[in-house]
Amino acid sequence: METIRPLHEKRNTAILLIHCPDKQGILATVTEFLNKNKGNILYLDQHVDRQEKIFYMRVEWELDNFSIPREKIGEYFNTLIGAPLSMYWRLYFSDEIPRMALFVSKMSHCLFDILARYTAGEWNVEIPCIISNHEYLKPVAERFGIDFFYFPITKANKDEQEKKEIELMKKLKVDFVVLARYMQILSKEFVELYPNKIINIHHSFLPAFAGAKPYHAAHERGVKIIGATSHYVTSQLDAGPIIEQNVTRCSHVDTVEKLTRKGRDLEKIVLSQAVFKHLQRKILVYHNRTVVFN
Amino acid sequence: METIRPLHEKRNTAILLIHCPDKQGILATVTEFLNKNKGNILYLDQHVDRQEKIFYMRVEWELDNFSIPREKIGEYFNTLIGAPLSMYWRLYFSDEIPRMALFVSKMSHCLFDILARYTAGEWNVEIPCIISNHEYLKPVAERFGIDFFYFPITKANKDEQEKKEIELMKKLKVDFVVLARYMQILSKEFVELYPNKIINIHHSFLPAFAGAKPYHAAHERGVKIIGATSHYVTSQLDAGPIIEQNVTRCSHVDTVEKLTRKGRDLEKIVLSQAVFKHLQRKILVYHNRTVVFN
Amino acid sequence: METIRPLHEKRNTAILLIHCPDKQGILATVTEFLNKNKGNILYLDQHVDRQEKIFYMRVEWELDNFSIPREKIGEYFNTLIGAPLSMYWRLYFSDEIPRMALFVSKMSHCLFDILARYTAGEWNVEIPCIISNHEYLKPVAERFGIDFFYFPITKANKDEQEKKEIELMKKLKVDFVVLARYMQILSKEFVELYPNKIINIHHSFLPAFAGAKPYHAAHERGVKIIGATSHYVTSQLDAGPIIEQNVTRCSHVDTVEKLTRKGRDLEKIVLSQAVFKHLQRKILVYHNRTVVFN
Amino acid sequence: METIRPLHEKRNTAILLIHCPDKQGILATVTEFLNKNKGNILYLDQHVDRQEKIFYMRVEWELDNFSIPREKIGEYFNTLIGAPLSMYWRLYFSDEIPRMALFVSKMSHCLFDILARYTAGEWNVEIPCIISNHEYLKPVAERFGIDFFYFPITKANKDEQEKKEIELMKKLKVDFVVLARYMQILSKEFVELYPNKIINIHHSFLPAFAGAKPYHAAHERGVKIIGATSHYVTSQLDAGPIIEQNVTRCSHVDTVEKLTRKGRDLEKIVLSQAVFKHLQRKILVYHNRTVVFN
Repeated sequence: METIRPLHEKRNTAILLIHCPDKQGILATVTEFLNKNKGNILYLDQHVDRQEKIFYMRVEWELDNFSIPREKIGEYFNTLIGAPLSMYWRLYFSDEIPRMALFVSKMSHCLFDILARYTAGEWNVEIPCIISNHEYLKPVAERFGIDFFYFPITKANKDEQEKKEIELMKKLKVDFVVLARYMQILSKEFVELYPNKIINIHHSFLPAFAGAKPYHAAHERGVKIIGATSHYVTSQLDAGPIIEQNVTRCSHVDTVEKLTRKGRDLEKIVLSQAVFKHLQRKILVYHNRTVVFN
Repeated sequence: METIRPLHEKRNTAILLIHCPDKQGILATVTEFLNKNKGNILYLDQHVDRQEKIFYMRVEWELDNFSIPREKIGEYFNTLIGAPLSMYWRLYFSDEIPRMALFVSKMSHCLFDILARYTAGEWNVEIPCIISNHEYLKPVAERFGIDFFYFPITKANKDEQEKKEIELMKKLKVDFVVLARYMQILSKEFVELYPNKIINIHHSFLPAFAGAKPYHAAHERGVKIIGATSHYVTSQLDAGPIIEQNVTRCSHVDTVEKLTRKGRDLEKIVLSQAVFKHLQRKILVYHNRTVVFN
Repeated sequence: METIRPLHEKRNTAILLIHCPDKQGILATVTEFLNKNKGNILYLDQHVDRQEKIFYMRVEWELDNFSIPREKIGEYFNTLIGAPLSMYWRLYFSDEIPRMALFVSKMSHCLFDILARYTAGEWNVEIPCIISNHEYLKPVAERFGIDFFYFPITKANKDEQEKKEIELMKKLKVDFVVLARYMQILSKEFVELYPNKIINIHHSFLPAFAGAKPYHAAHERGVKIIGATSHYVTSQLDAGPIIEQNVTRCSHVDTVEKLTRKGRDLEKIVLSQAVFKHLQRKILVYHNRTVVFN
Repeated sequence: METIRPLHEKRNTAILLIHCPDKQGILATVTEFLNKNKGNILYLDQHVDRQEKIFYMRVEWELDNFSIPREKIGEYFNTLIGAPLSMYWRLYFSDEIPRMALFVSKMSHCLFDILARYTAGEWNVEIPCIISNHEYLKPVAERFGIDFFYFPITKANKDEQEKKEIELMKKLKVDFVVLARYMQILSKEFVELYPNKIINIHHSFLPAFAGAKPYHAAHERGVKIIGATSHYVTSQLDAGPIIEQNVTRCSHVDTVEKLTRKGRDLEKIVLSQAVFKHLQRKILVYHNRTVVFN
């Protein structure tokens, strides 16, 4: 099915994400580089971590009158600014649409939320595949016209199946992965292929209740607030850089079933907000923490 | 398409919703009536408004061993308790599935949220029709296998079209109506046919910014928090009994477009939470205010 | 100094807090007992934990026309209802003003918040003593006209000093203890003298970041929300029954110092809300969880 | 009484607050001006309102090695940058401690909250006077060692009394005014003497329930969330630029008295957060809206 309505305006822009050791004048240097070359700045945000002495920046500018040819921007920037200032930097173009692989198991709420946004044109994204260890949600994928791939996982076949998944994703030119309540732990090898490119939703307010059955644990502990946490996946379970969190009140009247129900509404919104920040290239990771620009 | 997974347990229960002038012993009287007739109480909540001197109650009990035949419960209750205590009361059975008409215009986020819950079996509801003044969302209805009815509205034909809509709803035995960002104001006649049975979502924190373009108004006023409000529709615009509200922070960086985007996530959750409370028969209305049980 | 303004109305009421194994008719039995003896019910709330099969109730009624003499209510209730139904119950009278010991160290924000409410007459409480392991906040105690007792704590003298504190509290007829950012861990012996009668504020969203330096830990983990938790103290550190929690958003711009500052506003409100619930006799504890009535 | 503990570090810095028509290169121009003159930047935040085409900036730098003498900074900046770029700008020095007049009536919660922070050294502020239309809170002022001035207000004497208040404030070199639940409407003349320098707390989520008795109005309307709003006072009642807002949930069980109690906790925190932002020079006002930097 076609996009119902494109909600985002098309822009011909470039985006730079930067972090580097802080020193005087970086901000002026970068903005001057863009100004001098007629790059009209549409967005600029920066942050200095004064304790760690790290400078972070996101800048987006129009390419239309920019005097450096698009394919040369990276080279020029690195030669003139990036390398001299020991920068980590990434350059993105707004017309390059990121390709996302969706991993699901049996629960549909995050999947539906993402597909609804995709269909409504809320996001600038392609979804070349939905991958699952169950056939359960195949009808949902079909209904939205997205290819569904079934990779049942057992202890015995896990390595092999992951290899096939990775092969498929390479073939489909997948840029990043979203685990929309995918109930399998990815291997270290898989995770390291997509550093800061696998977004997970954990159904607790991390670091509380990491691991399995967090709503049961929350109920058992008698908390008065439950939460959900989206984070980049690292090889350490539920310990990767946190992108977004949200919470809602609960009380003694809430059974585990009710907490689970309330939690679903948190999970899907928190995951989708994290994916949107990722798609907008607004997240920088440093030392297992994120800088998430507005 | 079939329900993916029934998340709610099937129960053979009856539900009583009551309000009446407060006096000593009402609670004991009602619970004794159920206990004596072997009605195992699964849920009981009550509230006394001591200022207005009104007693409110919701009680749900198992029908399996209840000694009064199902079809006689209303009569017995009214004769023995309801009439003597001047009660307003409603009796519902959990196996009677409410039938909901969905009204939409062009925005899909609330529609998708409701259809996702419906498909996942989160709600005990039937959706016999989606009604719209635009053809825009017809593909979504088709994708979920729900009949779509197109009633274009102009100043000239509004009365006539509403009559057709009402006729259709009667034919389809619709119990209540959900306006999922339906951008038309219903006539007084329409509204009065469904008292406390039309649920609307307004995209502001009512009573702030009632009427058109609330995100523009919120931006203009420079608020630091935006909200969404679900309410029963009355003949006075955006002034009906409030069911649920939620808010999210905003700041000077948020344009009207960004507020609209943030607001969509509020709107769909707040509307769906209100619909769920309605489906659970947990809402009582008195003097334009709601009692919403837990 | 005198109370500036008594904000609470004086009431001549009794309060019953109950929990017991759930069975049919408890609610009717208790309310009938009050109704028959002309106890006008001002407040009633109940909860049934259907998984654990426990019934919880709080009921408050006027003593003015109650036909059982005040000093006999406990005996009658126990004989007629409490013992037969295996109830845990507590009876309180609204004119018996609870006596609270305040423990502080060096931080003043929770202390000021409590003393401001006390002075304004917000709470029905007496504060016969402020106890501290530092002399730092003595001027604050003096300013509010409350006796200040200094018990410096070292590893060597801890047992002995705690004994003196307990002696003092017994002499002053202290009913319950509030740890208003008291930076010492109480001994098992101390804690067991006041079961569910010592309220602590922990400066994190428990169970995340239990123990020392939670704001440092929160910063290190890169969370996007911080919290505060008030709970009854048990012999297991930061693991007692949670009474109230609240949270606030933070981001990459927040240093540990800023988190600490934001957190102070949470801590004082969350602690005072917990103390108020305790003073109103609205908390029941069962299996390390609380039922907190509205 | 002396400050209990200075929580803020002393800094020898200058702060520039700027807004001006947006054009390319402003950010680079300002940061270069500071860099070239050896001003080590400690804080920089900026915002561009692309719809209104306005550039906003707050920058703070160390004066220690700054090559322009302190008393010349304003002149140099204006000549070289401010005037050519049509800037509105304000220069502040961190060692100039702002002087705040506190206006109160009978309610003490906001007053106590402010005085607690002042005493604890949380804020860089002097409080030369507490002004009231009642003698009620005089004992609180005395307890904290702050001069209290009583100006009873009647319809007849209002103009005259305001003149005396203004005279007093001029004599005491008051920089800005905080209305800590002061229950009088200031005259247009008073307000215009302190443009964007009078901070009020209104006990509702503005623009809902402006004017008198907002908790009564909120109860009447049956809202599910209540709020508090701090704003700069303008000659239009409750319509000035909003600085900060916060909300809390309520329900049908909340009487007006309970809403008022819940609201007090919001009011005092929201007001103090606004005052703190003002003291940090983090607020810019443009077209009745605020930019509040992090």
